[in-house]
Amino acid sequence: MTYELYYWPGIQGRGEFVRLALEDAGAPYVDVARRPKGDARMLKLMQNARDRDRPFAPPFLRSGALLIAQTANILHYLGPRLRLAPKSESARLVLHQHQLTIADWLTEVHDTHHPIGSGLYYEEQKREARRRAADYRENRLPKFLAYFESTLERDPRPSTYVHLSLFQMVEGHRYAFPRTFRRLERRIPKLLRLHERVARRPRLAAYLASERRIAFNRQGIFRHYAELDSPG
Amino acid sequence: MTYELYYWPGIQGRGEFVRLALEDAGAPYVDVARRPKGDARMLKLMQNARDRDRPFAPPFLRSGALLIAQTANILHYLGPRLRLAPKSESARLVLHQHQLTIADWLTEVHDTHHPIGSGLYYEEQKREARRRAADYRENRLPKFLAYFESTLERDPRPSTYVHLSLFQMVEGHRYAFPRTFRRLERRIPKLLRLHERVARRPRLAAYLASERRIAFNRQGIFRHYAELDSPG
Repeated sequence: MTYELYYWPGIQGRGEFVRLALEDAGAPYVDVARRPKGDARMLKLMQNARDRDRPFAPPFLRSGALLIAQTANILHYLGPRLRLAPKSESARLVLHQHQLTIADWLTEVHDTHHPIGSGLYYEEQKREARRRAADYRENRLPKFLAYFESTLERDPRPSTYVHLSLFQMVEGHRYAFPRTFRRLERRIPKLLRLHERVARRPRLAAYLASERRIAFNRQGIFRHYAELDSPG
Repeated sequence: MTYELYYWPGIQGRGEFVRLALEDAGAPYVDVARRPKGDARMLKLMQNARDRDRPFAPPFLRSGALLIAQTANILHYLGPRLRLAPKSESARLVLHQHQLTIADWLTEVHDTHHPIGSGLYYEEQKREARRRAADYRENRLPKFLAYFESTLERDPRPSTYVHLSLFQMVEGHRYAFPRTFRRLERRIPKLLRLHERVARRPRLAAYLASERRIAFNRQGIFRHYAELDSPG
């Protein structure tokens, strides 16, 4: 069966966490909104007033008759099907718990450049963004990194969609907050080893080198603005 | 079996969404952190470095050998057990999707008074809070309300934990943003009818009238500051 992924074209964003799982598993999927007229199809599904369960926002996934929204929910569904999650309910709950904490973390990343309103331009909230980003760098980022570092085994072998998502969090921070992240790297040896190992997984390496991997840019969730990174 | 709920004492916060489900179902539970020395027990579980799956933050729930964190994850687990969710996987996914959108919504409510840093006092981010709250009232709140209104049946009968959570969102907004919410009420007749019906469910009505229901206050997620509500 071919999955259909719906997400804003042109950015990695939240859709990337689903893409990484599909790509790593070698699962057949169509990235609908990147196809001709695909973005119109995506909007139509979101605006379908007759569907009480329609998504509030992308990403969402079509799997047969199911239309599933919310990144962590999609991964919770895909996990066992892509062999990126154990099958027992209790182990799946724990994995999902970690993915939901990553979702919270990602929202805080987004809000470093959009602390006032997601419908406003960065330039309209630059001053507030500086303050929020400073708090993020000093308090929140170290806290999230320490937490996830502590969740990993000594010799972390990638095996779940949470590991793929942690790879993406490392990638994103290296792009968006290079100076801050470099200073924190010595505290997170297990996360960095995990990151390396994920990047070397054959299907994922092929994906990352392909045109299907959208480059980080200033429309996405991870954005590089020198003034939001730590000084010097 | 008696569940153990762990959440900050003194506020409704995210824990309240779990409490409403437990109370409505008449499930036996202990609100651990509100008992003597309970908050120390809660912190100990969060700081237990040997537990790789320990929670990042409250609320979390002990159910037998399981310790489950993340509000929506807890409700996903409890749903079928408390008869507040259907049993089929696909119906549970849809319900969970809605709960995750409520979680996103609640984070935006929190950020109206804490747009810069959750570790700072409101008074330290008052100016930014005014701007963020204005954007929330004008853009985000109407969008979330319209979305959830459209998810409801014409004659909504409470039957799931999502319905209980929507009750709480209405309660919270009436407390925190009374002027704004009153102006929006005519757009959400189904949500208001649902709210009324939830409030009349016998076990829930008893809970709401009891001392177990903590009053809204200025330490919680829903806070009333006149300057963050719409003017006049």
